[in-house]
Order: sequence, then C-alpha cells, then structure tokens
Amino acid sequence: MRLAAVCQENWTLDWEAIFATRAGRMRASEIRELLKLLEQPDIISFAGGIPDPALFPNEAFRAAYASVLGDASAGAALQYSTSEGFPPLRDWVVRQMQRIGVACGPENILITSGSQQALDYLGKLLLSPGDTALVTWPTYLGALQAFNAYEPRYDRLAPVEGNMTPSAYADAAAKAGGRVKFAYLTPDFANPTGETLDRAGRERVLDLARELDIVVIEDTAYQSLRYDGADVPPILALDIAREGHIDLTRTISCGSFSKTLAPGLRMGWICAAAGVIRKLVLMKQASDLHSPTINQMVMHHVAEHAFPAQVEKIRGAYRHRRDRMLAALERHMPEGVPWSRPEGGMFVWVTLPDGMDGARLLARAIEAARIAFVPGRAFHADGSGANTLRLSFSLANDAAIDQGIERLGRVIREAGTA
Amino acid sequence: MRLAAVCQENWTLDWEAIFATRAGRMRASEIRELLKLLEQPDIISFAGGIPDPALFPNEAFRAAYASVLGDASAGAALQYSTSEGFPPLRDWVVRQMQRIGVACGPENILITSGSQQALDYLGKLLLSPGDTALVTWPTYLGALQAFNAYEPRYDRLAPVEGNMTPSAYADAAAKAGGRVKFAYLTPDFANPTGETLDRAGRERVLDLARELDIVVIEDTAYQSLRYDGADVPPILALDIAREGHIDLTRTISCGSFSKTLAPGLRMGWICAAAGVIRKLVLMKQASDLHSPTINQMVMHHVAEHAFPAQVEKIRGAYRHRRDRMLAALERHMPEGVPWSRPEGGMFVWVTLPDGMDGARLLARAIEAARIAFVPGRAFHADGSGANTLRLSFSLANDAAIDQGIERLGRVIREAGTA
Repeated sequence: MRLAAVCQENWTLDWEAIFATRAGRMRASEIRELLKLLEQPDIISFAGGIPDPALFPNEAFRAAYASVLGDASAGAALQYSTSEGFPPLRDWVVRQMQRIGVACGPENILITSGSQQALDYLGKLLLSPGDTALVTWPTYLGALQAFNAYEPRYDRLAPVEGNMTPSAYADAAAKAGGRVKFAYLTPDFANPTGETLDRAGRERVLDLARELDIVVIEDTAYQSLRYDGADVPPILALDIAREGHIDLTRTISCGSFSKTLAPGLRMGWICAAAGVIRKLVLMKQASDLHSPTINQMVMHHVAEHAFPAQVEKIRGAYRHRRDRMLAALERHMPEGVPWSRPEGGMFVWVTLPDGMDGARLLARAIEAARIAFVPGRAFHADGSGANTLRLSFSLANDAAIDQGIERLGRVIREAGTA
Repeated sequence: MRLAAVCQENWTLDWEAIFATRAGRMRASEIRELLKLLEQPDIISFAGGIPDPALFPNEAFRAAYASVLGDASAGAALQYSTSEGFPPLRDWVVRQMQRIGVACGPENILITSGSQQALDYLGKLLLSPGDTALVTWPTYLGALQAFNAYEPRYDRLAPVEGNMTPSAYADAAAKAGGRVKFAYLTPDFANPTGETLDRAGRERVLDLARELDIVVIEDTAYQSLRYDGADVPPILALDIAREGHIDLTRTISCGSFSKTLAPGLRMGWICAAAGVIRKLVLMKQASDLHSPTINQMVMHHVAEHAFPAQVEKIRGAYRHRRDRMLAALERHMPEGVPWSRPEGGMFVWVTLPDGMDGARLLARAIEAARIAFVPGRAFHADGSGANTLRLSFSLANDAAIDQGIERLGRVIREAGTA
C-alpha cells in the first residue's frame, strides 16, 4: 500500500506529512495480499507455510487452561505480570536451550510474543536509520518487514557462496551513512529455502561478525523440526565455546513455540547475554508491558507435559509429507529445474529456468492448474530471485501433494515453451 | 539503567557503539524499580494502580476458554490469524464505541496487545527523531516510555491551565529540528491525576490540533469506570461531529479491556480513520503478526456475556473505595495539601507544599510508617512535579485506606516540620 492509497482527498489532516519517515517503508506485501485470495476450496495450496492445526495438542491446551484458571491461580493468570516473562516458563526455556547445547540461565531469557516480536525488538535495539543489516538472499520475509520499520540498508550475507571481505562490507555501510549492525540468519531448515548451514558455515558467520564487530541474530524457529541427519550446534553454542560464557557472546538467539506447540498463543523467546536481555526487558515494558500472563502459564504447563511427545508426533507427520513432496518433484519436475532437499522444517525451494518469473507463473498456475505457491522475489532484499518459488508441505495430504506437484511440473513445462 | 551498566568490561563486542541511538532513551524507571521492593506484607500500598484480582470474572473466563477450545473451534483458536483482529471482537468494539457516541465500523478498529501497544504503535507511526509530542504535565508514565523509543521532544499540553499559541508550539518544535505531530491525553479519570477534562476543554484540544494540523491521541483506558457525574463525549465523537465522518477525523482513540475485564490477556484496541488503521495493520503484521487468537476469541465471549454486569460490579466496588479514600483524606490531610476528587478511575492526586519532595517523602513513609505511593515527578516529561504524589484506591480495603491515609497525613506533617 502506497501512502497515497491511505489518504483521501478531502481529509482535513495531511497524513502523508504527519507520518514518521519510517512509515514510508511499511507496505503491504503483494504476496500476502494475493494469498488472501486463495482460500477457494478447489485450490491446492503449497503457499501457506503454517503448521497443520490437525496436529495441535488440543487436549493438552484444554487441560492447561482449565488448570491455570483453577481457583488457586486464576487471579494471577488474569493479572498483570513482569516484563521478563513467567519465571517457570523462562526456566523451561533455559532447559530447552541447554538441551540444544546452549549453557544459560533465566537472566538470559526474555519471553516474547512470538519470534516475530523478537525480530522487531532486535531491529529496534540495533538499527538507526541508514545502518546496514546483513541478510541472506533469500531470507525470511517477516524479518525484512520487522527490520524495515527501522530504516536499514541491506547487504548480502553469503556464508555458503562466499561473503565479501569485512572491509568491503564496512566500506559499503559507511558510504550509506551508517555501519553494519548485525547478520541475521535462520541456520536450520530456513524459511524459505529449507536449507541448513553446516558447522563450518556457522563458524564463518562468527568469524565475519568478530571482524566487523557486529551482532549475530540466529532465528531458530524451525530448529526442533529435524527429520533426518545430525543436529548442528546453534551459532550461540559455538559463540559460547569461543568466549567462555553466554554473557560474553555477540549472538542473540530467537526461539518460538509456534512451529512445535501452537502459533495462536504468540509465544517465543530471546536468549542472549544478560545485559542485552536487561535492555530488551525495558523495551518490552515500554511496548506492551508483557506477553499475556495466562498464555505464558499455559505454555509452561503444555511444554512440561507434552513437548517431547508433540515434537515426535509432528516430526513424523511432516517427515512423511516432505518425503512425499520430494518424491513427487523427482517424478514431475522438468530438466533444469533444481530444488532443495530439506532435512527439516516446512519448505522446499525451487529454482526456475533463467528468465522464468515466479509471480507470472503463479498467476498462470492459479488460473490454469488451480495450484498455489509463493514466488521467491519477496524474500530477496535486493528484489532479485524472480526465477524462484517456495513450496510448503506442512498442510498438504498425499493426494494433494501428488496432484499438485504433477500440475506444477506441467505449468512450468508450458511456461518454458510459451 | 545506564548503558554503562549493561556493558561488562571484558565483553568482546562494544555494545554501546552497536545499539541504535534510541536505546539511549530506554531507561529503567527508578519508581518501578523501587516499587518492586514493596511487596512486603506489612506495607499498606497505594502505589499499584492495577485492578483488584478479587473482582475478575473468573467464571466467565473459565467458561470462555473451555468453549473456545471445544472441538469445533480449537484448531482456529490455536492457529495464526489476521493482523486486524478477530472479526467478532472487532464488531463488539464497534458496538462499544457506538455506545459511547463514536459512529464507526469494523474497518476503523485494530485489536492490539493492550493499550500500551497502541501507544507504542502510534509513536512508531508518527514520530521521527526530534519531532514534538504534546503531553499534559503530568501524564501517563507508560506513554512517555512508549514514545521515548522514537526520540521525541515533549512540549506541554495545558487544556485547563491554558495552552500556548499554535505558532509558539510550532516555532519551538521547528527550533528543535522537527514538527509537532500529536497531542496525547487521557480525558477521563486520567492516570495519574484522576481528573476529567470537560467538553469545552476537549473542544479546545481539537481547536489547537486543527490549527497545528496534528493528530489527537485519546487514551480511554478508564472511560468505563465512572462512579458519578455525567459522561463527557469522547474527543473522537466531537471530532466526528465536526468532520461528518470518522474517516475524516484526526483523532485516534485507544481503548483497553485491562481495567474492565482483565489485564492479563493484554487486549485493547485502536479506533480511528480507516486509512490510519490500514497503516497500523501493516505495523502489527511486521511487529508481532497478530494478538493471540485464543485470547481474542475468549475476550469476545466474555465481553458478549459479562461486560455490563462486570462493569457495574467493579464500579460499585471502586466507587466505595474512592469514597472511603476521599473521606479519609478529608480527615487526615494537613492544611495546604490539596487533592483531586476523581469522578472515576483509580487515582487521587495529592499536591504537597512547595519544596516538599515526593520521592524523599516515600522513603520516609516506607521506613517510618510502612505505607507506599508513587512520587509524581516520573509522570512529568520536564522533570517537574517533585511536590506531587499519586494514590491508588483500587486494591485497598477500608481498614487499609483508613490507617494508610492517617499515616500519610502524619508523615506529611512531620516532613513539614522537619
């Protein structure tokens, strides 16, 4: 949405003149707008990328809300609470971080309203207008939307293809009127590519961050959803190994319950050096006081009682769907159309032949084949990636995957000969 | 908290250099820090200013969570949802706004995570660094904390005592390198003063806003808590009367369920011109996607079933406590110590003799009399107001009010002769 579209001619107030400069960077994503139109029942959609509600642990949530609203705790559940978060939930997150190799304490944890809020807070904490954020091409669209409010410039983080030299990054940032502040990445089963960065790649990110004297923001939203292969240590764990203690590290890790237990409660966390958490607690207090008390108590209850079994259950279900989609791609994709082989998460990334446009292909796919996906350009901070697209297998059943991928192959072949 | 306190000498990263400039304005409130220490059971506290959990409609919340988590809606309640908010809840807010005189539709409503988030979003939407926000002296501390992140300058809005001329405001703002963007006020039973702005005062705010071509932000957090006297039309209603339609107005109204139903779900709303709401929806999407789905569904359920009865119940309880506190003040306050007579809300505002310091009085009151209140200086954007203090009657029973105010009178008299 352009500013002009917000404003009506006969308004008494000149809204364009009164909005902050950052408001100019807040635009509706064309993709999101388009996807809203896709809820017709005859469309096979690989667009969503959200968890399957049929897999939610409804019974555990029912029991947890009933328990938390029992006479002993109802008053506390419905009352204001501290900005840091519900202490038993922070303790649970500490144990979860320890399980994945991050030695930390409750002073290293802030509870957030989903990891989207974590990204918003980190942009707010670190970015002055004109500063540079390093992101992969492509990266999570929601991260770009969160950071955009703080008016950064983007440069390309490329731990696989090869980073620029530290001085090249620093010079480009200085020329743009700021400095490099952080590198943001999703090392496990990234949205949108599904790819995982190996340990050597993570060490290279830390090396670069140390040379540039910047922060690393590690988004672990999908970390629990590994279907095969061995866990790779989180960047924060590697940073702790270098520095000796989490309070000496430069890595800020964002986690989420959205992909494991349920997204509708909007609950995630930030794990970082205690001094950074203290600053973020002030930000939380000023921006929404705290995440809902009752949901934090409930999430603690469900995590304590159901987390391992729930993760095992959804891993099984999503692994099956991934396998089915990879097999269908094998059968139906034309020559010269490669795709990623994710070890976890929800996404497969398809690269179309040069010159083929994912957004135009989507229009044709909806009309001619009743299938949908997300064109890849929106995930690219520089507007490249027109010949890419994202498929999600998280919501599709076997028949939809088989038919949908068959139709996708046909649409791509037709576009190639059109 | 100063930046220096965040940083440890041996950190590898220079955090002070990497934080955004706005981070320098995020400091812990000394008052909030002090009040954390006041949870000893023998202290009579008038400091809190939060609703009494004994009055929460626990049974209605229990029924609502159980209903929403029934088989038919559990999947939706635990899933992602739209950034605008749950449509039936928006419709309920539309009807509530209509009841208080504001003609609007669902396109004029955004559901927020409490009205604190509304204030954060409005600062984010409107303030570039160096812009001016007009606030009353004193004003809501949380509003200053929310706005501070966007690096404004403050000037004094004084609809009772007398505003400056529009050109004086504009000149001062230009000299500071920005322009006046909005006037923020709580017209009904304000936090911290308890005072209500009459209709003529509200019209004067609109007159000033029109001359300056700025926004009016109206905080209605306490609006439902009127104990006597007649309702005064919301500023948004007066603005609609002037302009003919909400979509032509300059007033943005923030509402909350925190003081009526419960604060622990963090749920409020913004009501404004549809074009402004569309911009704020983008901001919501980028900052936390949406407020928790399940809580929105539950709040709709509770509001539909219990709102009028609940408001009647808490009005009765808080009216009684206000009356008790005003009577105790009448008995115990020394000569020359005036206080406000609120027609609603949760607060009474006391002005101490010139030269007496509320913060020093608090230290003495805690030590010598085991009572607590909030010193008034923190509510003043210019650091004035040292000789003021805020009392809340929302959590105190009769005996605590009688004894506590008696002790307060004694402490003030002793300080006056010390």
